[in-house]
Amino acid sequence: MNAPATSAAPAAVGHSGDHAALIQTLHAIVGPDQLKTDPDITAAYSRDMMPLAPSGIPLAVVFPSDTAQVSAIVRACAAAGVPIVPRGAGSGLTGAANAVDGAVSVVMTRMNRILEIDEGNRLAVVQPGVVNLDFRTEVESRGLFYAPDPSSYDWCTIGGNLNTNAGGLCCVKYGVTTDAVLGLEVVLASGEVLRTGRRTVKGVAGYDLTKLIVGSEGTLGIITEATLALRPKPAAPCTMVAAFADTESAGAAVSAAIRAGLVPSLMEIMDATCIEAVEAYTGSSILGEGPTPAAILIGQSDAGPGTARSEMDRLEQACEGAGAVFTYVTDDLAEGRLLLQARRAVLTSLEVLGTWLTDDVSVPRTEMANLIHACAEIAADVQLTIGVVGHAGDGNMHPTIVYDAGDPDQVARAADAFGRILDAGRALGGTVTGEHGIGRIKQDFLAREVGPVALGVHRAIKRALDPQDLFNPGSMFSR
Amino acid sequence: MNAPATSAAPAAVGHSGDHAALIQTLHAIVGPDQLKTDPDITAAYSRDMMPLAPSGIPLAVVFPSDTAQVSAIVRACAAAGVPIVPRGAGSGLTGAANAVDGAVSVVMTRMNRILEIDEGNRLAVVQPGVVNLDFRTEVESRGLFYAPDPSSYDWCTIGGNLNTNAGGLCCVKYGVTTDAVLGLEVVLASGEVLRTGRRTVKGVAGYDLTKLIVGSEGTLGIITEATLALRPKPAAPCTMVAAFADTESAGAAVSAAIRAGLVPSLMEIMDATCIEAVEAYTGSSILGEGPTPAAILIGQSDAGPGTARSEMDRLEQACEGAGAVFTYVTDDLAEGRLLLQARRAVLTSLEVLGTWLTDDVSVPRTEMANLIHACAEIAADVQLTIGVVGHAGDGNMHPTIVYDAGDPDQVARAADAFGRILDAGRALGGTVTGEHGIGRIKQDFLAREVGPVALGVHRAIKRALDPQDLFNPGSMFSR
Repeated sequence: MNAPATSAAPAAVGHSGDHAALIQTLHAIVGPDQLKTDPDITAAYSRDMMPLAPSGIPLAVVFPSDTAQVSAIVRACAAAGVPIVPRGAGSGLTGAANAVDGAVSVVMTRMNRILEIDEGNRLAVVQPGVVNLDFRTEVESRGLFYAPDPSSYDWCTIGGNLNTNAGGLCCVKYGVTTDAVLGLEVVLASGEVLRTGRRTVKGVAGYDLTKLIVGSEGTLGIITEATLALRPKPAAPCTMVAAFADTESAGAAVSAAIRAGLVPSLMEIMDATCIEAVEAYTGSSILGEGPTPAAILIGQSDAGPGTARSEMDRLEQACEGAGAVFTYVTDDLAEGRLLLQARRAVLTSLEVLGTWLTDDVSVPRTEMANLIHACAEIAADVQLTIGVVGHAGDGNMHPTIVYDAGDPDQVARAADAFGRILDAGRALGGTVTGEHGIGRIKQDFLAREVGPVALGVHRAIKRALDPQDLFNPGSMFSR
Repeated sequence: MNAPATSAAPAAVGHSGDHAALIQTLHAIVGPDQLKTDPDITAAYSRDMMPLAPSGIPLAVVFPSDTAQVSAIVRACAAAGVPIVPRGAGSGLTGAANAVDGAVSVVMTRMNRILEIDEGNRLAVVQPGVVNLDFRTEVESRGLFYAPDPSSYDWCTIGGNLNTNAGGLCCVKYGVTTDAVLGLEVVLASGEVLRTGRRTVKGVAGYDLTKLIVGSEGTLGIITEATLALRPKPAAPCTMVAAFADTESAGAAVSAAIRAGLVPSLMEIMDATCIEAVEAYTGSSILGEGPTPAAILIGQSDAGPGTARSEMDRLEQACEGAGAVFTYVTDDLAEGRLLLQARRAVLTSLEVLGTWLTDDVSVPRTEMANLIHACAEIAADVQLTIGVVGHAGDGNMHPTIVYDAGDPDQVARAADAFGRILDAGRALGGTVTGEHGIGRIKQDFLAREVGPVALGVHRAIKRALDPQDLFNPGSMFSR
C-alpha cells in the first residue's frame, strides 16, 4: 500500500483550542478503556482501504457502547467545535471513514449486538457494529436471509453497509442495503436521537428519512440502531458458467439474458486479466485446460427446484447464442462454490502483482462490454494492468488498477486511470459509484455527475441537519 | 359524499394582493386553454377522494404541458407569494391534493407521455400525468411489468403514485413505488430543475434525493419526469382461496405462511362485512352456498410453472393448519380473475350501503387479526358498519367505514372511528399510513407517530428546500 496522503483540508469547524477539556469530557462519557489519544494508536484509525484518499490524525478515538454515550460525545464535540468522523471496521473503499486532523473518530464496533430477530415478521433489530457475516450466519440458522453481501462481508459492519448503502453479489435479484432497511435510530448533530421508519413492511408516514440517512456516509448523523427486513432463506442454487473469446460476446450474453426476462440471483463477470491472476495465484485453471478466455460469466439461480435449473439452462442458451466458447450448468453445490471462490479471489490474486486500487462504476447493462473496452484502452494508455471484475447482472463493474505504490509515477498514473474510468462510465450513461460511495476520493466526480442544482440541494440538506458541519467535514461534497 | 369541509388554515404565503397580474403571467406561460379561473371550474379541482379533509377554492388551475412551463409557473407564484398545490387525477385518499383558498392548483394530467421504454435495460421514462394502467398496458405489451398497482390504477397517475409512494396488491412480493424509481426530474421552489438518480440499476452517488422526493406529497417540489425500473412480466398466476370461521384463524394462516417462507405475489383478506356487501352487490356468492365466513383469504403465486402451484399448495396447507373451513387451489386464470374481481369490488359494494371512508393502517403481520378485532369493537362502539379489506401479505389493512354523509352525527362518528382505527394500529406497533399518505387528514397522527425530533427534521428539510412554504402549505405537517 502506498504512503497515505495527508489531509489537505483543514477541519471545517473552528477549534476551541481547549482540547484537553474535551478529552476530559470524553473520558467521563466512555471511561478510560474506550478512549484512545496515543498518536500511535489513533493513527491506526485514520484510514480505510482506499489508498489514494487524504486522511489526518484524529485528536481522539472513542468506542461508545450505547446510544446515550454517542449522544453525549456528539454534544461534547459540538460544544468544543471539534468535528466527528464516524466509522466502523474501516473496510470502505473511498476514504469516507478517514479522519481529518484534530477530529474525534467515533468507532462503532463495540455496539455489535443483534438485539432482536422477529421470525413472525421477518425482521431484525441490530446495532451498527455487527459484522455482516455474523448477522447473516445468525439469521440463516433461523431459516432467514439478509441479502446485502458486499465482498468484505466477513469483516465489514452493518453500520458501514448502511452508511455506504452497500451492495454485493446478491443485489441483482434482492436489491441493495437501502431495500432492506425498515427503520433507523440516528444521533443528530444536536445530540438528539432521531427514530425513523417502522417495523411494518409498508409505511409512508412522512418523508422517507430512513432512505435519506442510508448512503449519507456519516455526514448527517451517527446510526446507532437499525431495523432490517429479512427474507426466507433461498433454495440451493443452480450454477452456470460460460467462457467467451471476446468481451463483446459476454456483454451480448448479459443483454440477451435481460431481454429474455431472466432474474438470476447472481451474475458475475471476470475479464482475462482477472482470470490469469486467479489462475496464477491458485495454481489451477478455473475451467480446465485451453487458452485463457477473454471473459468468464458466472450465473446462479435460487428460484427453487426445477425452476432454477430451467433459468440456468436459459442463461446457458443466451450465452451460446452470443457465441460462448464454453458453457456448463451444474446443480452441484460444491462446484458452484468453487466457481464463486474463483470470483471472490480476484482482489487477493491481483495483490500478488502489486497494490490494487479498485474502482466502482455502474453503467446501463447494455453498455458493460463498452466499459470493459474503455478500461483496456485506459490500461494501455497508462501502461498499468487493469483487471475488470463485476456484477454483470446489474452493470456494476469494479475495474481494478494494479500499480507499484512505491513508484510516484505509477501512483500518478493509477490515479489518472481511476478518474478516467469514472469519466468513461459516465459517458456511457453510468454513475461514478454503484456501491462504494463518494467519500474523500470522488467529490469532484459527484459534483460533475449531479450538477449544480442537485449539489445545492445536498448542501441545503446538510446545513439544515448539521449547520456546524460537525459530521465528516470535507467528505462527499464541498460545503 | 358529505359536504366538503372548507379550508380552515389561511394560505401560508402572504398574498400580494395583485392576483390579476399573476393570472396574466400564468396566461402568458400556458395560454388560454390551459388556465382556468372560473370558480365553477376551479371548484372541481379543489378536492380528492377523502371526504373529511379540508379544502379551499383555488385562485386558478393551470395545466402545464412541459417542464419549462412548470418552472415558469413556480417562479411566478413564488414572486407573487401565492401557494401552489400540485395534483394529478385526484384519486388520493388523504386530501393531499386539496386546494387551499387562493392557491394555484397545478394539474399535471397533460404531461402524460411515455417518453421511452428501454427494453435492454428494463426501464422507462415517463411524464407524471401518465395513467398507471396505460403505462402497465404498454410495458406489458413488450413483455415487461411495472409492479405498483394501487386499487385506483385505472385512473390514478404515476405522478400521484410517486408523490404518495403508492402501493397496491403486488407489493407483498414486488415492493412499492419507491422501489421502482431510478430517478426523477423535479421543479424546486426556486423554479430550478433538479435531476435525481440515474438510469443504472445501482448507484449511490450522493444523498438519495429520489427517495426523499417520493412520498413527499408535493411538499418539496413538482415531479415532471420519472425514470422507472421494470421487471420481466411474471408467469401466469396460480390462485388459492380459503374461508375462515373466525378472523384469528385467518391471521394465524398468514403468520404460518410467513414463517413457512412463502412469498406470494398477492395475499388479500376480506372480512364478513365486505364479503356480504360484495355478495349483495353482485348477487352471487363468492365461494358458493353456505354461511358467510368471517374472512376470506386470496393468495396468488407467479413463481412459474410448478413452483407457483407448489407455493399455493403450501399456502393451502398453512390455511388448513390454521383451521380454514374451505380451501381451493386453481391454475385456471378465469377463476383466479373472478376471485380478485370480488376483492376489487369491495369499495363499490360498500358504497351501496352509504358513503365510504377508507382508512389505511399497516401493522406487523402477526398483529393483523388483532387489528380486525379492534375494528369490530370500534364499529360496535360508534354504531357504524366497518368492513376490513386489505393486503394481508404485508399487514396493510383498509378498514372502511360506511356512514350517512347527510347526517352530521354519523359524520362525527365516522371521523371518530377513523382516528380510533389509526390509534389501534399504532398501539399494535403499526403505522398510521401504509400507502395512502398523510395529506390534510392525518397531520396530528403523523406528529404523534414520529415524535418531536423527527418532526423537527421534517421542518428543517422543508425549510431548506422550500423556505417560502410555497408547495402544499398545511399539508402533511404544521410548518
